[in-house]
This record gives sequence, C-alpha cells and structure tokens, in this order.
Amino acid sequence: MAEYIVRPIGVVRSALKDPADAPKQGALTGQEAEIVVDPAYLPALDGLERRVAPAGKTVPGGARRKDGKIVVFCWMHFADRERLKVHPQGQEDLPERGVFSTRSPHRPNPVSLHTVTLLSIAGNVLRVRGMDAIDGTPVVDIKSHSPELDG
Amino acid sequence: MAEYIVRPIGVVRSALKDPADAPKQGALTGQEAEIVVDPAYLPALDGLERRVAPAGKTVPGGARRKDGKIVVFCWMHFADRERLKVHPQGQEDLPERGVFSTRSPHRPNPVSLHTVTLLSIAGNVLRVRGMDAIDGTPVVDIKSHSPELDG
Repeated sequence: MAEYIVRPIGVVRSALKDPADAPKQGALTGQEAEIVVDPAYLPALDGLERRVAPAGKTVPGGARRKDGKIVVFCWMHFADRERLKVHPQGQEDLPERGVFSTRSPHRPNPVSLHTVTLLSIAGNVLRVRGMDAIDGTPVVDIKSHSPELDG
Repeated sequence: MAEYIVRPIGVVRSALKDPADAPKQGALTGQEAEIVVDPAYLPALDGLERRVAPAGKTVPGGARRKDGKIVVFCWMHFADRERLKVHPQGQEDLPERGVFSTRSPHRPNPVSLHTVTLLSIAGNVLRVRGMDAIDGTPVVDIKSHSPELDG
C-alpha cells in the first residue's frame, strides 16, 4: 500500500512539558494551550474566527456555533508505533487491549484527535481549552467541529 | 519542521466508487461500508468487539457503549493538498473560506474524521454505517469514540 507524508502545519505551545505530565484524556481537565500555525497556512484559518466561543453571550449564526468547538489533529511524536496492545489509560491492572479500541497515543499512525474550545485567534495563534498534547507537539490539521457528525 | 510517514492500516470497501458520488457529510446519510484491516494489525482490533452496536437491546457496560460508535481516520488520497481556501460544501455561490474552518477533503494533510456506527466485526473486516469515504480510500487509524471527549 502507498505511504503518505505528513507535513505539520503548526505546533502546540503548552505548560505541559513532559509526556508524564499529560493528563489522560486531558480534554476533560480544561487545560489551556496555544496552537501556533505556520504563517504559510494563514489563509487556511480564514473563517475560523466565527468559531470562537462567545464569552457568555449569544453569537450571530445560531446555536450550532455557540459551543465554540474545533477539531485538532496532532502527531504524537513520542508514540511507540510498533505497539499494538496497551493497558487502557496506562493502568497496568487492567488487561491489555488492542490500540484501535482505545485512545492511547501508541498506535501505528499516531494521529491524535482533540475536540477543544476555541477561545481566541490572534494572527496565526489560536488559544484553546481542553488540549492535553504537550508543548512542542506537531499539529497536523484543524477542522470545524459538528455535533451532528462527531457527537 | 520534521515530516512523518503515514502507513495505511487498511482500506475502505464501499459501493461509493467515485469522489463525485460521495455525499457531502455522508455520515448523515447512513451509508454502509466495510473497513478491511491489514491482517498484520489484527491484534490492535482486540477489544473493539465491545463497541459493536447492539441490535435493539442493551449491552453489559452501560449507556456509554450503547451507541456503538467508533472513530475512523482516512487519508483522502484524491485531495488537493495545495488548496488553502474552498467554497463550503462545494457550493460555488458561497464565499471561499479557509480549509481549517471547514470539513473539506482538500487540506494540507488530508486526514479525514469519520464517526461511524460499528455494525459487526468478522476477522479483519469491520462493517460500519455512516461512512462517506469512497471505495479504495486508505484507512489511517481507528479509535474508540467518547461522547464526553468528542461530542
């Protein structure tokens, strides 16, 4: 089968510096972070400002945009790509399971899925809440979030 | 920035044969398809059988598993990776927007996100509902779905 090359479009800037610090499913902890997009991709951000979460007020466009969520894919560069089974949530007392039935970073193609709240955009820097990737993690893609498609 | 190599772990088998046939956001149309996983990755599927959608009855493990949803990433091999702006949903009367504010397949790293219902698993073949990728699309990753993380 053909192979494909991923070229990161940005990087995560976070107070989380070490994989051991990263909370499991840190989306639920409200960790804030920045996504610094390579300026070459600035045109691709156009329209994303409509997704910024409102600070306690409604926005034009209705309820579907009010949650302010976007989808971010990262490349988990510390992942073990050879690992096909893991202890769920790293708990060694739980029996190993196939990585495709988990959210472990260890998997053949370590692309992570983060549904985060978009707090602000300033130029090429997105501020988000609910991001558990550590500082320096390469960002692969950004998408609009859809409760109908993704929920 | 470093580059990374994606090695597909499987392929989509679908009645949708042509990109022009693929419904926009076909997750909403209930399109069924098969995901044929490379047998080398069979151990990574272990545990996924617990995610199979029940046929009208409850399952052990409670409500969180009852929806039978999983997350599938594909590589959109027909995408235009140079394209930074698109007409949303391909509608040329709508003004162009940055691809990162859309779900267009055209984007620098064309990894797609599909939240699908897992209908059955037979060996290395997963049958799913809500998959709009066309026949022959490379599959990059499979993950458990979490309403808390992804909804």
